[in-house]
Amino acid sequence: MSAQPHELAFPKGESFSPDGVGYPIPRETESAARFREIAAAAEAHRRRGGQVVVVQGLGFVGSAVAAAVASVSDAAGRPLHYVIGVDLATPASYWKVGKVNHGEAPFRSPDTKLPAMFRRAVHERANLRATTCEDAYALADVIIVDVHLDIENRVVDHVDEIRVDLGAFEAAIHTVGRNMRADALVLVETTVPMGACERVVLPILREERMRREIAEPVLLANAYERVMPGPGYVDSILSYRRTFAGVDEASAERARAFLSTFIDVEGHPLWELRDTASSELGKLLENSYRALNIAFIHEWTRLAEEIGINLFDVVDSIRVRKGTHDNMRYPGFGVGGYCLTKDSLLAQWSAVNLFGAETVLEMTLAGLKTNYDMPLHTLELTEDLAGGDLAGKTIAICGVSYLADVADTRNSPTETLVDALLEKGAQVRVHDPHVVTWVERPETVVLQSLEETLAGADGVVLAVPHAAYLSLRGEDLAEMAGDAFVVDAQNVLTDEKARLLHDAGRRVIGVGKGHWRSEGLHLDR
Amino acid sequence: MSAQPHELAFPKGESFSPDGVGYPIPRETESAARFREIAAAAEAHRRRGGQVVVVQGLGFVGSAVAAAVASVSDAAGRPLHYVIGVDLATPASYWKVGKVNHGEAPFRSPDTKLPAMFRRAVHERANLRATTCEDAYALADVIIVDVHLDIENRVVDHVDEIRVDLGAFEAAIHTVGRNMRADALVLVETTVPMGACERVVLPILREERMRREIAEPVLLANAYERVMPGPGYVDSILSYRRTFAGVDEASAERARAFLSTFIDVEGHPLWELRDTASSELGKLLENSYRALNIAFIHEWTRLAEEIGINLFDVVDSIRVRKGTHDNMRYPGFGVGGYCLTKDSLLAQWSAVNLFGAETVLEMTLAGLKTNYDMPLHTLELTEDLAGGDLAGKTIAICGVSYLADVADTRNSPTETLVDALLEKGAQVRVHDPHVVTWVERPETVVLQSLEETLAGADGVVLAVPHAAYLSLRGEDLAEMAGDAFVVDAQNVLTDEKARLLHDAGRRVIGVGKGHWRSEGLHLDR
Repeated sequence: MSAQPHELAFPKGESFSPDGVGYPIPRETESAARFREIAAAAEAHRRRGGQVVVVQGLGFVGSAVAAAVASVSDAAGRPLHYVIGVDLATPASYWKVGKVNHGEAPFRSPDTKLPAMFRRAVHERANLRATTCEDAYALADVIIVDVHLDIENRVVDHVDEIRVDLGAFEAAIHTVGRNMRADALVLVETTVPMGACERVVLPILREERMRREIAEPVLLANAYERVMPGPGYVDSILSYRRTFAGVDEASAERARAFLSTFIDVEGHPLWELRDTASSELGKLLENSYRALNIAFIHEWTRLAEEIGINLFDVVDSIRVRKGTHDNMRYPGFGVGGYCLTKDSLLAQWSAVNLFGAETVLEMTLAGLKTNYDMPLHTLELTEDLAGGDLAGKTIAICGVSYLADVADTRNSPTETLVDALLEKGAQVRVHDPHVVTWVERPETVVLQSLEETLAGADGVVLAVPHAAYLSLRGEDLAEMAGDAFVVDAQNVLTDEKARLLHDAGRRVIGVGKGHWRSEGLHLDR
Repeated sequence: MSAQPHELAFPKGESFSPDGVGYPIPRETESAARFREIAAAAEAHRRRGGQVVVVQGLGFVGSAVAAAVASVSDAAGRPLHYVIGVDLATPASYWKVGKVNHGEAPFRSPDTKLPAMFRRAVHERANLRATTCEDAYALADVIIVDVHLDIENRVVDHVDEIRVDLGAFEAAIHTVGRNMRADALVLVETTVPMGACERVVLPILREERMRREIAEPVLLANAYERVMPGPGYVDSILSYRRTFAGVDEASAERARAFLSTFIDVEGHPLWELRDTASSELGKLLENSYRALNIAFIHEWTRLAEEIGINLFDVVDSIRVRKGTHDNMRYPGFGVGGYCLTKDSLLAQWSAVNLFGAETVLEMTLAGLKTNYDMPLHTLELTEDLAGGDLAGKTIAICGVSYLADVADTRNSPTETLVDALLEKGAQVRVHDPHVVTWVERPETVVLQSLEETLAGADGVVLAVPHAAYLSLRGEDLAEMAGDAFVVDAQNVLTDEKARLLHDAGRRVIGVGKGHWRSEGLHLDR
């Protein structure tokens, strides 16, 4: 039986990036051949006194960190580090290797510095390459671990239900241990359960090194990332405070020295904690704090709507109290992304499973649940305006990403709303100017024309405050939306635009906009 | 039957201040005579073009606001306002009238500006007086309402259990309405349930004025106070952002004009909200936010202790994230004071009782409960070190006030701990360098000698981080405490002092100090 022509061309298959470009996955021999060039360049860099840095995992964080580390120079302007990104030769992952080697950022970002950094590192300075070859780890002075470590279920009713499969993470660490040099530093950037470095990573590295008869102590540190999507992507790596801790003094020293080579530590001093568990806890705590503060405002949102108050105004009036209240959150549609939706669960899981602790983070977990369910409040408002019955209604949702003006759709609250609307028997259309393919939900077409999305819809949900929506004129929205009602889930509409829609006969409701509510739309009391 | 000599001397009795000074309560005729002098001075001030301001209620806020308003001058350096403070001729209240008329601040404060302000207003500028005569309201251009409005129960299991008796507040507003000039502005500074101005105060004033055939619309505004105990007491009135709202435009305008006479609005612009309910909600929301953020860290405190982490260090490392995380709270002993312990309940009560709303502020109320119970965690630690049985043990508690270096003992968490210790059969001694009389618990003697407090105790709880405790040398503490174990509930001890105590054979444990825990005291990993 003869193979299909396609299979002949790409015997290992093709890996597609979210923007639709296909990258043929190379045969192992081919990879190995390409890697020889990388290895030669890395060795040459090293002979010139530079360091070789291998980044394990080219995801959202790892790829950006790789390019950032590649961007720093010595006093003479020469690259300080030769950086090799490693990811898997699988359809789900290989495209990131392909993108990097083309000098492109794997992820779209509103930060224009990001693509420039990849282009320069790959095409001009030639000190950034990606590979699927595990041999890369053997070249490294520093191995930065940025592999995926997720929980399996973001919604739980009980602590026992939280499931974390460390399998893939452990496998990645085994790979490092099998290949690493004796004196390489392993720097874990991945957000991990507290205790992971000491109780998971360290034993694995020791085991693998023992097998290889390496007697030196492992150099291992945690330095969790605070990478932020949005226009400050690169700065959140190079010009941002970083916390770290080593498993011993030598590890901490090496970590401090390495981090200082690419972070602007003059302006943003490093913060060393006494042990890696403290550092690991820090990451989970800071994200849990943010998540809880979002959850907190949600119950006041419902109250404000019920008693007719514009909560945005009130929050603004409180945020003037700098240092104590200026991070109060606004009413909103929901919480998405990779971190805020899971880190509290990761903390609880590790407390129980790595430490045998009994403390239950009740308030923290309740907050996470509130955030997860938050889009269902927008559903309620939508149902209200649909006269209590969504069956057969066409609802147009504006915004799929989880944050304004980014393309990231991970755990987007729009997904929760879409599911709930479908369950109610509604027809759903979605639009997002930044999202071409909804990676987590490829069966849902993301329309690119707003006009087409809104035409003939019964209701419109403004779910994400993308600049493209904020800048819409009220008249244009009224025209495009026809007779549809409008639910403003994220403070997209000004009072003036809402009034214009109302005066044009549209019904309007807004999350946190209590002052719009009483009997239809009353902007004035 | 002849009256007692004492009764003859003070026919209406005597009113004692917390610092033990007695003020005989004057007869009505006597009050009236004194008031005639005040009235004459006020009228004279007014004829010179100045305003007369009456402050209703000389409590913690009202007395300080009265002195602050009296402190401002016109361009020529003359007092801008003549201020009259009004309080009741009762044993519980009259001492405040007495203190003010002696040119003294009724409340002790670490802010040295405060006593100076009273002295100057009463003795030098002669534009601040206090009285019990209701006629004062008839003199006022502006009436500032600073009367007490409390909930009756700070611990509830269900929303229906929250009890607020508006009786005294309503009576105070009736008094204002019976006496006020037609064109006077009523400015509510008291923290009130949202809706209070429109649904409680306004109807009462209208009713009283109708009876007096006053047809003009009421001038009424809410401008909630943000007065803070501690060294910034005066600045928190004169140099701090203030939110306000009027029941109509004329009211808002008058409120803005008046607030601008004594607040540094150049540096701290006023913030006007669209209605008084928004302003009232703002106060309750901002305090609820603070309370919840304190509650949040408590469950992480328990976790950190259980898994051996120094949470203070971790919080410090996170607080460097300015604008998003820099208000994260530290592990602690509990939450006291007048506001943070009740304002969430007030919000929930008014939602249900003034608006008929159904929203339950579940997370907010759970946080309040956590804060209320927080001292019981310190109890657990104390019980641990006492070998599981507190019966017959003598426990010395250092700190009675609810905040470091203030004398305010309202809802102090120490009270919760004392009650719980007594219930367990322990003997309790308390010490506080700032508290002479524990007003809410006069039967408990507050010792003034630390040595005497600690001598022979079985255990010591460091409950409040007063400077006097922070500056204690470890050696001195070890000597004074004898063999007693030490529970550090508020980060009073450094690691070095804890180590010193440990090395001297004392057992030491600390809230949030997970690193001290494993097997006795292990400061190092």
